[in-house]
Amino acid sequence: MQGVKVLGGVVGAAALLGLGIILGHFAIPKGADSPAPSISASQDLDLGILETVMGQLDASRIRENLRELSREPHLSSTPRDEELVQLLLQRWRDAESGLDSAETFEYEVLLSLPSQEQPNSVTIVDPTGNILFSCRRSEENVTGEQEGPDVVPPYAAYAPPGTPQAVNAAKHGVAGVLVYTDPSDINDGQSSPSQTFPYSWGLPPSGVERGSYLEYFGDPLTPYLPANPSSFRLDPANASGFPPIPAQPIGFEDAKVLLCNLQGASAPETWQGALGCEYRLGPGFRSDGNFSADSQVNVSVHNRLELRNSSNVLGIIRGAVEPDRYVLYGNHRDSWVHGAVDPSSGTAVLLEVTRALGTLLKKGTWRPRRSVIFGSWGAEEFGLIGSTEFTEEFFSKLQERTVAYINVDISVFANVSLRAQGTPPIQSVVFTAAKQIPAPGRSSLSIYDNWIQYSNRSSPVYGLVPSLGTLGAGSDYAPFIHFLGISSMDLAYTYDRSKTSARIYPTYHTAFDTFGYVDNFVDPGFSSHQAVSRVVGNVLLRLSDSLFLPLNVSDYSETLRSFLQAAQQDLGALLEQHSISLGPLVAAVDKFEGAAAALDERISELQKGTPDPLQVRMLNDQLMLLERSFLNSRAFPEERYYSHVLWAPRTGSVATFPGLANACSAAMNTAPGSAAWAEVQRQLSIVVAAVEAAAATLRPVADL
Amino acid sequence: MQGVKVLGGVVGAAALLGLGIILGHFAIPKGADSPAPSISASQDLDLGILETVMGQLDASRIRENLRELSREPHLSSTPRDEELVQLLLQRWRDAESGLDSAETFEYEVLLSLPSQEQPNSVTIVDPTGNILFSCRRSEENVTGEQEGPDVVPPYAAYAPPGTPQAVNAAKHGVAGVLVYTDPSDINDGQSSPSQTFPYSWGLPPSGVERGSYLEYFGDPLTPYLPANPSSFRLDPANASGFPPIPAQPIGFEDAKVLLCNLQGASAPETWQGALGCEYRLGPGFRSDGNFSADSQVNVSVHNRLELRNSSNVLGIIRGAVEPDRYVLYGNHRDSWVHGAVDPSSGTAVLLEVTRALGTLLKKGTWRPRRSVIFGSWGAEEFGLIGSTEFTEEFFSKLQERTVAYINVDISVFANVSLRAQGTPPIQSVVFTAAKQIPAPGRSSLSIYDNWIQYSNRSSPVYGLVPSLGTLGAGSDYAPFIHFLGISSMDLAYTYDRSKTSARIYPTYHTAFDTFGYVDNFVDPGFSSHQAVSRVVGNVLLRLSDSLFLPLNVSDYSETLRSFLQAAQQDLGALLEQHSISLGPLVAAVDKFEGAAAALDERISELQKGTPDPLQVRMLNDQLMLLERSFLNSRAFPEERYYSHVLWAPRTGSVATFPGLANACSAAMNTAPGSAAWAEVQRQLSIVVAAVEAAAATLRPVADL
Repeated sequence: MQGVKVLGGVVGAAALLGLGIILGHFAIPKGADSPAPSISASQDLDLGILETVMGQLDASRIRENLRELSREPHLSSTPRDEELVQLLLQRWRDAESGLDSAETFEYEVLLSLPSQEQPNSVTIVDPTGNILFSCRRSEENVTGEQEGPDVVPPYAAYAPPGTPQAVNAAKHGVAGVLVYTDPSDINDGQSSPSQTFPYSWGLPPSGVERGSYLEYFGDPLTPYLPANPSSFRLDPANASGFPPIPAQPIGFEDAKVLLCNLQGASAPETWQGALGCEYRLGPGFRSDGNFSADSQVNVSVHNRLELRNSSNVLGIIRGAVEPDRYVLYGNHRDSWVHGAVDPSSGTAVLLEVTRALGTLLKKGTWRPRRSVIFGSWGAEEFGLIGSTEFTEEFFSKLQERTVAYINVDISVFANVSLRAQGTPPIQSVVFTAAKQIPAPGRSSLSIYDNWIQYSNRSSPVYGLVPSLGTLGAGSDYAPFIHFLGISSMDLAYTYDRSKTSARIYPTYHTAFDTFGYVDNFVDPGFSSHQAVSRVVGNVLLRLSDSLFLPLNVSDYSETLRSFLQAAQQDLGALLEQHSISLGPLVAAVDKFEGAAAALDERISELQKGTPDPLQVRMLNDQLMLLERSFLNSRAFPEERYYSHVLWAPRTGSVATFPGLANACSAAMNTAPGSAAWAEVQRQLSIVVAAVEAAAATLRPVADL
Repeated sequence: MQGVKVLGGVVGAAALLGLGIILGHFAIPKGADSPAPSISASQDLDLGILETVMGQLDASRIRENLRELSREPHLSSTPRDEELVQLLLQRWRDAESGLDSAETFEYEVLLSLPSQEQPNSVTIVDPTGNILFSCRRSEENVTGEQEGPDVVPPYAAYAPPGTPQAVNAAKHGVAGVLVYTDPSDINDGQSSPSQTFPYSWGLPPSGVERGSYLEYFGDPLTPYLPANPSSFRLDPANASGFPPIPAQPIGFEDAKVLLCNLQGASAPETWQGALGCEYRLGPGFRSDGNFSADSQVNVSVHNRLELRNSSNVLGIIRGAVEPDRYVLYGNHRDSWVHGAVDPSSGTAVLLEVTRALGTLLKKGTWRPRRSVIFGSWGAEEFGLIGSTEFTEEFFSKLQERTVAYINVDISVFANVSLRAQGTPPIQSVVFTAAKQIPAPGRSSLSIYDNWIQYSNRSSPVYGLVPSLGTLGAGSDYAPFIHFLGISSMDLAYTYDRSKTSARIYPTYHTAFDTFGYVDNFVDPGFSSHQAVSRVVGNVLLRLSDSLFLPLNVSDYSETLRSFLQAAQQDLGALLEQHSISLGPLVAAVDKFEGAAAALDERISELQKGTPDPLQVRMLNDQLMLLERSFLNSRAFPEERYYSHVLWAPRTGSVATFPGLANACSAAMNTAPGSAAWAEVQRQLSIVVAAVEAAAATLRPVADL
């Protein structure tokens, strides 16, 4: 899982920095064949096989996978990362439990790494340059795993090097950023060593969250082109998306020293945290604190950009009937440190799912109807780089042939409830799978019944159902949904939100995210890992083997209707003032609803008889390609890769069409007739055209 | 057919213009069901049906169609244009010979029309403003058809209104353009009334070629969006692609008066023409001529932009087996004046083909395997507007489902030989059809054998074959090939190039392009029209009914190889100087060749047995979608709609990858490390990625 939380201190511009304003803490969301059973073209999902797979997915094997995967730190492109590439190849090429084939695809990508010779540092110095205080350069070695040459020191990837020269932040503007995670945001307020790992799942005071500070995803030097060695690369000086000023993350132990010694006005209530003092805005240190008022903060960042080789591993099971239809299932392989939760909990599940399926495949008892492609992506932590390069290299064929993409990155955040994110067409297959599998630790309940207790919503169509989240850009599903328009999902087990307000599991992106942490605190017994592997296996088999694709496209009707209603309620009056009518959008949504309902009926009728395989294929193509009809590569020229007119980034709180919402925000305070108002109209036309195109895709195929 | 020839006089900036430099003449290249026979999923093309259709396509019916279609002028969006919409609907809805359905799709598009109140004028005036000479405002009424309220006077559509004020062209730059067609370019030098229509097919001295001067195609106010009434429209002041200065076309009779009175240096040899004097460059009139040296040229243009409703008519025959695969066949309906050749010769053929097919359909003897969609496009003469809006409105489904687009605009330029343009995959089906049909007037020869005598090339694969031309943007195929990436072709009968050097048939876009002109001079007896209808019908049936799509994708290997060789020969040394290697492109082309050859073998093997319909479908999808893999919507940000990396506009004479060639031209005289050289590398990477993607599309579908 990629993503950073930009927190903590923004530091004034100086080699010796006057400690500037603390910006408060808030999260930035981130982004040679086996024997084949004889299968007829009209063969449907085999429930016996499904049952077998469910039975074979084994918690203790997932535990052993995780132990091996997280044994050593495996930062992208390091020797251990390459060892894991070999491990994946070996598993996927295993004669007894492997896939049809597996290979690596190597890209040359721009990473950002801290200098080994010149460590980044954050210090407080007096006017003569004496160091009064130094922040830790590495985390405390609590379990023996936090030290060693392969533990990358905390840093903010892609933050530029620098030790700015100005002195007064208020005068010279912000010149650097310090980032920390407040105990109130991650530990439910707990902050002492005895309250945190290894005594609980809490983040130790020295823990520092690493992360990528890149604005876009994908290799920064090869936008829209695969980063093959021969590819054209931008001069890094011309590449965009890098942070403009140095940044460095620190632990809350060190943040406390800086923050609690600040003077100035009180920070707003919502900025206060659990460091045990009142947070103040500065500038400068208070006279009764540890540092004299003329002390300054020195932030030295020495990150370096480097071209590195990073591999994806791709494994394939060839489909028996429709080998040109792909079900994709992937996760990244690279971690920040040991990455037991992120991403190895997902990879451990991936390996168990491929083992179970591979075993049936090699025995000759099963082969999927459609091809299944498994992906172990590289360099995700730096910005979804491996998966993005994959979508760039195979753009056309993936877009033409892919049924759905399943992502399982962190498979278990916590062991309480399923969490699923995705686009509407995948909701029903996730529900179906979740209803079929017992909830870990609550075997009288299905995963579905357990889920609905923790996260639910009232659907106008179905009544109370579990909440399906939407997809941002926090993991490798991003290029699949936003760039290729492939129906995608992200699956995991997660917390009871009534029991913790932790933004994410506490050791996220730190050197404390280790096997022992998972084994003792996240999922002892690994039953939640097993539960996720079953949901994934179940969803995957339904997608790969069902005669009719289990993509319920009419679930988009509910989304479109709710987006429309939100637009009418929250933007309608404003638009009317500017003589912009939502009428064409209303008509388009109506048309979509009608076409989707008619298609549902057609499917029901076909299912009653013994449908011709070609008829089923044509219908499935409509289901598969619906998501593509929402793409418009020219809708958001400022947003790299984002083409899906329903799921592009949205500012503001109105859950509606993002292009329209963003354009309205931008136009709101401009004069009638401004370019911003023209953009509102353009965005409205874009969404109308997309919804019309979606309806056209669902209509009977010989109608226009 | 849309397109202008910018010729003749560029006029200095003035209400009273000092006659400026004559730029010479050069061409700008432009751009409720019927009974169904029982059909099995593995049914192949029925040769008996093919034979029947060939036999039923009737020259005299085409002649009658043409007489009706060209009876009145039918400029886009005029009442007669709307009458022809109704005629098409009536034919396509006919109970005995109609299609399954037909409907109109109306768009609100920006046209440019001359003012009725203030006619455009070109005059020569003396210093006091007395008119010494006026160019004709309309063509001479030679056949009684050149006069009347519906004959639009000659004008340059989208040229802005203006009567510029400056006096000296040399001082103030070019402020207006006069355009004419020289008898040497259009009439093989003939220029007297008795040598031209109605005494021959030559252009009468008063004939003026109308045309659109828009830089882009599609409705200028709604790029990338369908021009529905509710669509966002650019303010015309912000729209791009309009000519910057006034322009007006005149006849060569008037051009002679202007040109032959010029003084100054002689124009270059290649600029000289057949007006019977030496062409000089000006500025100003010669003292021994008809006008005093202080006389000036006054060009007054009063064109107006108007939003008008223009309709496409779409007719559909639903496919029996794969209704979601579309064969498209279309032509525009709008003309400049009577438009007997352009476009009615094409529409006359279209109506005859739909009559023949519709009759079989309504009788219940035939229904195609795939759906066939017939299009009668509106507003083509203004810039391929109707067809472009169609591709914008149905972008996704057309791109996903369309097998090929057949365009027949001018069906008969002259009655000598077939002329076909298209992308490589359609070459073989055109050859097959052409071999099966007797050449008109030479019944011992096939159309193919006749064609190869007039236009041929030596193919490294096939030996001597007829030349297939490439597709520019001269007619409605442009949005299909360039924007959607659909394999496309344009078919017609044409001249013997050894007998005439006419740029195009002489009355092109004039009021002399009438039924009588066609009946007497272009194709007396209409046997060439019939031949074209047979080729089209034959190709269409092969595309719609063949079990295996007759798209020979491996013919792209020859094109890629020749583009590569041209790049190596003509750009290789230059690239090497800048350390840019063509190696990755060589590897990609090799890969494509290998994949295409392997696919050919797979097809041959499948054809030996009784292939499963689903297997055939998968293979056909590869063939259909190959062309799409050459698209890159970000390759040419300056070129509206052009996304096909092989067929985008190319400057320079090297027949190679256009992006690479254009970038090299731009970089040639810049320093190493310039942005222009970076663009060369980017373009090379784009074409490598596209050829790699194309190879990936052709490889076995379960390989990556």
